[in-house]
Formats: sequence, structure tokens, C-alpha cells
Amino acid sequence: MAADQFILTLSCPDRAGIVAAVSGHLAGRGCNIVEAQQFGDDETARFFLRLVFQSGGIDQDELQRGFAAVADTFDMQWTLRDRTQRHRVLLLVSKFDHCLADVLYRWRIGELSMDIVGIVANHPRETYRHLDFDTIPFHFLPIDREHRVAQEAALSKLIEASGAELVVLARYMQVLSAGLARQLEGRCINIHHSFLPGFKGARPYHQAHRRGVKLIGATAHFVTAELDEGPIIEQDIERVTHADTPDDLIRIGRDIERRVLARTLRLYLDDRVLLNGSKTVIFTS
Amino acid sequence: MAADQFILTLSCPDRAGIVAAVSGHLAGRGCNIVEAQQFGDDETARFFLRLVFQSGGIDQDELQRGFAAVADTFDMQWTLRDRTQRHRVLLLVSKFDHCLADVLYRWRIGELSMDIVGIVANHPRETYRHLDFDTIPFHFLPIDREHRVAQEAALSKLIEASGAELVVLARYMQVLSAGLARQLEGRCINIHHSFLPGFKGARPYHQAHRRGVKLIGATAHFVTAELDEGPIIEQDIERVTHADTPDDLIRIGRDIERRVLARTLRLYLDDRVLLNGSKTVIFTS
Amino acid sequence: MAADQFILTLSCPDRAGIVAAVSGHLAGRGCNIVEAQQFGDDETARFFLRLVFQSGGIDQDELQRGFAAVADTFDMQWTLRDRTQRHRVLLLVSKFDHCLADVLYRWRIGELSMDIVGIVANHPRETYRHLDFDTIPFHFLPIDREHRVAQEAALSKLIEASGAELVVLARYMQVLSAGLARQLEGRCINIHHSFLPGFKGARPYHQAHRRGVKLIGATAHFVTAELDEGPIIEQDIERVTHADTPDDLIRIGRDIERRVLARTLRLYLDDRVLLNGSKTVIFTS
Amino acid sequence: MAADQFILTLSCPDRAGIVAAVSGHLAGRGCNIVEAQQFGDDETARFFLRLVFQSGGIDQDELQRGFAAVADTFDMQWTLRDRTQRHRVLLLVSKFDHCLADVLYRWRIGELSMDIVGIVANHPRETYRHLDFDTIPFHFLPIDREHRVAQEAALSKLIEASGAELVVLARYMQVLSAGLARQLEGRCINIHHSFLPGFKGARPYHQAHRRGVKLIGATAHFVTAELDEGPIIEQDIERVTHADTPDDLIRIGRDIERRVLARTLRLYLDDRVLLNGSKTVIFTS
Repeated sequence: MAADQFILTLSCPDRAGIVAAVSGHLAGRGCNIVEAQQFGDDETARFFLRLVFQSGGIDQDELQRGFAAVADTFDMQWTLRDRTQRHRVLLLVSKFDHCLADVLYRWRIGELSMDIVGIVANHPRETYRHLDFDTIPFHFLPIDREHRVAQEAALSKLIEASGAELVVLARYMQVLSAGLARQLEGRCINIHHSFLPGFKGARPYHQAHRRGVKLIGATAHFVTAELDEGPIIEQDIERVTHADTPDDLIRIGRDIERRVLARTLRLYLDDRVLLNGSKTVIFTS
Repeated sequence: MAADQFILTLSCPDRAGIVAAVSGHLAGRGCNIVEAQQFGDDETARFFLRLVFQSGGIDQDELQRGFAAVADTFDMQWTLRDRTQRHRVLLLVSKFDHCLADVLYRWRIGELSMDIVGIVANHPRETYRHLDFDTIPFHFLPIDREHRVAQEAALSKLIEASGAELVVLARYMQVLSAGLARQLEGRCINIHHSFLPGFKGARPYHQAHRRGVKLIGATAHFVTAELDEGPIIEQDIERVTHADTPDDLIRIGRDIERRVLARTLRLYLDDRVLLNGSKTVIFTS
Repeated sequence: MAADQFILTLSCPDRAGIVAAVSGHLAGRGCNIVEAQQFGDDETARFFLRLVFQSGGIDQDELQRGFAAVADTFDMQWTLRDRTQRHRVLLLVSKFDHCLADVLYRWRIGELSMDIVGIVANHPRETYRHLDFDTIPFHFLPIDREHRVAQEAALSKLIEASGAELVVLARYMQVLSAGLARQLEGRCINIHHSFLPGFKGARPYHQAHRRGVKLIGATAHFVTAELDEGPIIEQDIERVTHADTPDDLIRIGRDIERRVLARTLRLYLDDRVLLNGSKTVIFTS
Repeated sequence: MAADQFILTLSCPDRAGIVAAVSGHLAGRGCNIVEAQQFGDDETARFFLRLVFQSGGIDQDELQRGFAAVADTFDMQWTLRDRTQRHRVLLLVSKFDHCLADVLYRWRIGELSMDIVGIVANHPRETYRHLDFDTIPFHFLPIDREHRVAQEAALSKLIEASGAELVVLARYMQVLSAGLARQLEGRCINIHHSFLPGFKGARPYHQAHRRGVKLIGATAHFVTAELDEGPIIEQDIERVTHADTPDDLIRIGRDIERRVLARTLRLYLDDRVLLNGSKTVIFTS
């Protein structure tokens, strides 16, 4: 990655002249655009843009102040990030650690460029004894029916204290309260072990087996107050047959889940995921 | 295809000795098994078998009589077909003819080995003027609210008169009555333009667009009295993006629908599709 | 498709300010950009851009004259097309007509927006008797060893006379001379029945069968003087097994070939395929 | 997995009566066949069979002695394995450990049922410090030009001493000598980081990038004396674009490599991979 690179993402009401205004502004400051993706949603009349540019030495504060005027004119929601400044990510996990193990491996070899600010689990450290957590802080927050509220309060405090920008439910298997879900809107991702909207809720692979489907899938989506209804970011499937038992589907599903989550994280970490109401705009390369 | 080939399919309560009894019986008559696939369903304790064998000159009647005794012993449901004897198929179509056009092309070049005994449409012949129907009888059975019952009666009569073994709803877009659906159980296939069980019912691509899914699909299934709930035979998907409009999904969907239907027909025509309650057993090669 | 839409594609040496100059120029004339894709190739230091914009009433000639100055400044190769003005396409076919039949069907229902200016075949019209050519001129140019040069001269004349912008070898199965290939550089597409660069040359499915591969594929590429070495536009594959004979591979291959060619045509017709030396830049949506 | 299950695989010259003889023999001893797959290769006139059966209490020695007579009659190559008796596997690795990490994880959670009898690397233990090797013996066998022969002799000794039935080159990146390759025929698997036969040899992702392909892949194959020419077991691909750099291809390739190798191992460990000359017969479920 070249030095001095910044990523600008924005969305605003669609009208003429947005691209010209933004690119003109950047050109005027000696910035050179190296990547650009845009989308105009005809239904909502909203416009989405992602730019990667080289700043030519101007620092983030100055860029930010300079762009604010343009953003105001067009009523933009926007983010500007120095590409070398990594997202702060908190990982939540339950008993099954295939997503966690995969994310950690990819992070270690540099595939997922982020700062993991903590791992939260409702099982003790011992459950993950084969995984090397390096210096990542580990938090054991057990759950039982009586202390559910207290546990979530502790979780909420932890999210804040860690400075996490993104919370990843890496097969966390717990439903967040509507309150916490709303608080984390647009920055909490879940990997659901089904091909939504089919087989919502619990034990989707058993549901899929009962229905006799020929493909199973997984879905990464933003968490919202309505369970399994958040904006979809990424999905994938694999072929199964009549001979596959529910256990086979679970095994095959693990592969789908971990690759869907990994792709989603990679997209998110490179600021390629934009919210568009109950849907997403995904700017792939 | 070698001469003298027969396909035997059967299902029965699972117990020891089925394969030995069947293969022993065939060996005793000088028949040579060239393909074999089997499946024991642990849940239902039912056993499924498909055999292709060379008869060594014995004709179908004799084979049938000879096998009846074995079948009785094991309480089998079974079929025996001379492989050169083609299935008789009736095609039903509505306005959109992409599945029909595709099936006709594949039939013409020998990919789908069947006798098409008729094409039934609720639009006049003129709608399909670009398609060469060859000598296949065409039946125009228009539908309106008042004559729905009469139309289905005519359709039912036509199915019987044509000697159709299989009825294919190639985007027929009409719901069969529960009565006709039951009558055609196990021999009427529908191509549903969604990845069931997601987006049941009407306008599934519009539903999919509204939900913002990243993959869309199609499903071929047996028709049952419960709409969109019949045993699934084959499914497939394609990737879509935020930039795809409902019309794009419909276009992409056409490709999925026609290839799922074509694969399904090919499997069915080679006696590779067995019913297992509300599911199917598919013996691919 | 909205009225007044134009597609601008360009490539030029990469340097700062291209996007700003182009979008500034268009904004200055009241044009509104509705789609934009760009790519900077770090290896060749070349920049590629595709814009769709609404002209606000200015006609093509005026747009063209106006943009010429910008293009000169940056040493651009560029095209500007009124989106309602359809590409003129000539289809070449040999004995196997699955790609031709598929292209014709998609063209008829509006999936492929183009003017088919002719069909050239080295088999007589009778070979394709089941296909409705509508009012498309058909040309029978038989080939034999002795008259190969004369046949190609006739073909070359026909390409010119027809005003074809694009020549599609839809399983034409004849090698163009180096001279004609060079003459058609960047506007002649071939569908090769293998997953290049594996199995170049003749009978690739038999080669694939002999090698025992588990996936077979097809490749659409620009034709160049070097056989099977032209810039690749699109590829796809399907899974095969040990039980598939060469004839099965050919059958499965037909499906891959026709969908790869159809996708390629759709990309080309929407000006999404740009040449980058021996490679391509493909701007998907 | 039920108790008393055995897997029988065999290949022999094709002729009438093989299935009847084998299934009759097993039925006569009270064994119940629960899975069966067969293939007759018309080209080589060889027959392949895989059976899973319940022995009803007879032990492996007795089964083996009993079956020898049947095997002799038909000139069979065959194996019989108690399904609870796990294959002994030796893993060889070089610097890149994504395949090793993935195999270890799947082995740990029970997806790959095998005894790992050792890990051999040409890098020191420190290179893999983030991986938990549990009690698996680790062997550091460094390679340099001068001691290549001695290193391979040590490796060969290690293979024998460990009692390994299967040797897996999990991105080992070293070419085995023709002698060792021959010695390990049919029990040494390599994961090649290309979609063979395209891009044989070194740096295939750079080759693929130069050629501008739209799909890249990986291939698991048996190692033979001829480099990159061994029987192919499994392959897979992913889509890439003009924007992907060689480093992107390497990253995407890691995912393909590890899932192709994992699938291959799973097939092999369940005795589903049979050799058929320079090809394989793969009995999937």
C-alpha cells in the first residue's frame, strides 16, 4: 500500500455535480484519485461514493476540514480514513471457534489488516486452548438466564472501553438486546449459519435437512433490533445431497461461514461496505 | 447407449440382504450390472436403489415377471424401464418461454431423450412464433377467473389422452388445484423462480431485491397440494449486487431457471430421481 | 434506459488529474455522471475509465468535438457512444449452433441489445433450419482446402460491406489468417471450448478427458494473430467426474460455452470491455 | 459411525458377475452393505468398487482371509479397512503454513479422522510458533543445494520409521526425486497452486496474472516421477479480475489451496480415491 493514501466514503441525496465537486475539490488540493466506485440508487434517490486518493502530503485533519464544506453543500454522510490507520475490532465468540480461528490466522499473516482490541467469550479461555491469542486481551463473560442483563451491561462497557469501532459476532450464538443492537447500528456484524431469509432462527442446518434443500449457505449481515433481518453484506452456498446428515451440513456449513465472514471483514476493513437503509452497497474492486 | 440396457429403481424398508438378493437374482438370469447407486436413509429406515444392467437378451416382460417375486419379499416400490423406451413428457408454458425454448433446443440436439407428447399454453401459438414446435401437438387453453375449473378439467383430460408420464410446468405460472396436484404426485415438476424456501409465492425476484440478498436462485421441485412445498429436486444460484435492479434479477434468474430445469429433466429422464416422503433421493453419476 | 445517455470509455498514460478533468468538463456542459468505473494499471502505468452520463440535451457531435480537447491533453484513446445506438454485430458459425441459437434467443427477448447485420456459416441454411433468423441476412461461405484464401477474402469483404463493428466467432471452428486477425484486432471475439491456457488447439474436451481433470471450462477472448493467445475476456467452468465420457464433457461444455459467450457479448455491447495490451479490463457493474 | 463397519475397495478387469459375487460373499457371512459405489471404465475395461458394510461381529483377519478367494477369482487389487482404524499420515511443509494450519484445525475438531504421525519441515519449529502441534513429532530437515540427496535420504527414512501410509505435501515446495516419487506411488499427495494443466512449474500465480485469466485454481494430485503430471484428485477455482495483483492472486489462491487439500484428504481418509492409471476414480457420497 502506497503511503499517504486515504479512503473517502460518502452517501447523500442524488443530484447532478457530486462527482465533479468532489474530484474537483481533491484535484485542487493536489490529491490524486487512484480508485473510485459510485452507485446511484434509483429507488431511494441516494448516491454512494468511495474514493481512494493520494494526499500529496496533506494530513488527515486538514483534509477533513477542507472536505467539510463540500460535504455540507450536498448533505453528505461521510468518512475519511488514513489507510494506514487500522480499524479497531472486537471479536465475540461462543463455543464453536472455527470463525475465530480463521479470522486470527488471516489477521496473523496480514490478510486482515485490523487491530483486534479484544476477544469476548461466554466460555473460559481453556475452551480455546489450541488458539494462540498473542497479546489480545481475552474476556470471559459467562451467560446464564438470571444474569443476562448484567452480562450485556458488562459487554457494552467493554465495547466502549476497548474503543472498538467494529464488533464481530463470530458465531457468538447470543441475541443482543434491541437496545445494544441499536447502539451498535452499522458497526456490528453477525455471521448467520443459514442462507437468509431461508431458515431464520435456531438450528438452521437441521431445518435445511428437514426441507431437503440441495444447497446450504451462510449470511453475514449487520445486526439490527429485528433478529435475522439486518442488512445483508455477503452470502455464499455449497451443494449438498440427500446423503448428507445434519452433522454433514454443519461441517460443510463451517467452511461457508468462515469464508463468508472473512470476505465480509476484508470488505469492511477496506471501507467497501456502505449502509443503504435496510440494504447495503458493496464496492468490490 | 448399449442395447439391452434396463434401469431398475426401487425403494423399500431397509434390512440386510437387499443388494445381495437383487444382484444375485440378476446374475442368475445372466444380467450384468453396469451402474449401481444406493442410499439407506437412517431417519426413515428406507432403502433406495438404482441399477442399470444389460439383460443379455431377456425381454422386459420376462424381467418384470421374474423380479416381482424379489420385490414382494422386500415390499418394494419399483420401476423397470427399457432404456431405449423414452419417457412421455407434456410441457406446460405461460407467457415467458425461456425454459420452453431451452428444453426444445436440448431435446432437438439429443441432450434430453424423451418424447414430447404435447405443449400446453395459456397463450396462443402466435406468442411462441419464433419457436419451431416440429410435429409436437400444441394446445391453447386460455385461463380466466370464471372458467378456471373448466380449463383445468380440459388440462386433466389432455394429460390423460396424451399418455404423459411426466408433466413439466416450464414457467406455467398457474397454481394447480389440490386435486390435480395429488393426481400427478411424483410426476409433475415445477420450476420455481426462487431459491426455496426463501421468497415463496409471487414475484420472488422483487422480494429478493427488496431484501437486498447477494445471491438469487431457482428451484425445481415436485408439485404437491401445498404450494411451493413439494420435494426439492435441484437448485442453483447466481451472485447479484446492489446495482442489479429487479429487472436484472429477472434476467439473471432466467438463466438459473432454465439450467436448473434442464438438469432436473435430464436426471428424471434417466430415472435418477426417487421420492423419499417430502424429500428426494438424487442418484447422480 | 433513460434517454440522452452516453457511454465514454478511455485509456491513457496514468497521471494526476484525469478524473477531475473529465468530470469537470462534463459538469461544465451540464452532463450528469450516473456510472463510473476506473482502473490504474501499476505495471503499465496506464489508466482506464468508463463513464455513463446524461447529456442534458447536447448531441453526440457536439459532445465529441468538446471532449476532443480533453482527450488530446491526456493522449487518450477513447470512444463515445449514444446508448440507444446499438452495436452492429456479425455472427460466424460452423456446424454446432448452440451458441448461435442462444445468442439469437437472447437478442430476440431484448437481453442482448445489438443489430445483427448478418450470419455467416460454412454450412448451408438447411443446417440451421430449426432456427428463426428473422430478417437477418444469411451467408453461406463453404470452406475447402483449395479455396481457403478466396473464402476468407469473401468473408473480409462481407465484414466490410455489412458495417460490422464486432465479429463473433460463435463456434466458427476456423482459424482466421494472421492478416484478417490483425485487421479485426479488438473487435473479433472467439469462444474457445477450453479453459485457456490449458488444452489449446483442437479437441480440448478429449484432451481434458485424457488428463482426468475434475473441472472443464470455456474462454471468450479477442482473436489475435497468435492462435488461442488473445486477451481473455471471460471464463467459466463446471465440475466433471471420472464417469463423464468425452461426449459428456462436450455436452456439459456446450452450456459453459454459451453462457460465457452471452456474458461476454453483454459486457461488450455495454462498452465494459477495454483492451490493455495482451489483457483486458472488464468494468462489471 | 456405527461399530463393526469396514470399507472394501477394489479394482479388476471388468466382466459379468463381480457385484453379485462380492455382495453374495458378504451376505453369506452375514455382512450388511450400507454404502456401495461402482464404476466401469469403458476405455480401460477396468471395474472399480467401494463398499461399506457391517460385519456382524466377524473380525478383520477373518474377513480378509474369506475375501481373498473372491479377489483371486477376479484378479482384484483390493483393500479392506476397519473404519475405526485411522490412516497414518505424515505432513510435509515449507515456509507457507496455511494448508498445515487448516489441516491441523480440521483434524483437531474431528473433521479429518487420521493419525498425524509427524510434521516435516525445511524451516525450524520457530517458523510455526503460532501453531499448536500438540504431541505430533516435529522434524526439521533443512535443504540446501549440497545436501539435497542426504536430506531426501533422511526424509525417506523418516517416512518408513513413522509408519506413514500417506505423505501429504502441504505446500512443501520441494520436488521429490523420481526414485522417492515412485516409491510413494499412490500414497503421496501434493497440492499444486495452479489449475493444472495450466501454469505448471514455479510461480503459477505470476504466470496467471501475466496471462490475464479470469479464474485461478488449485489442484490436488498424486505425486509421480513426472512433475505436475500425476493423477488429479480434486480441483477448484475462484474468480479474479483485472484489478487483482499477483499478491491478490496468491492470497485468493491460499483459500483455494487449503479447501482443495482438505476435501482431498477427507476423500482419501474415507477410502474414496482409487487409482485408474494416470487418472483417478473418486467415489463421492
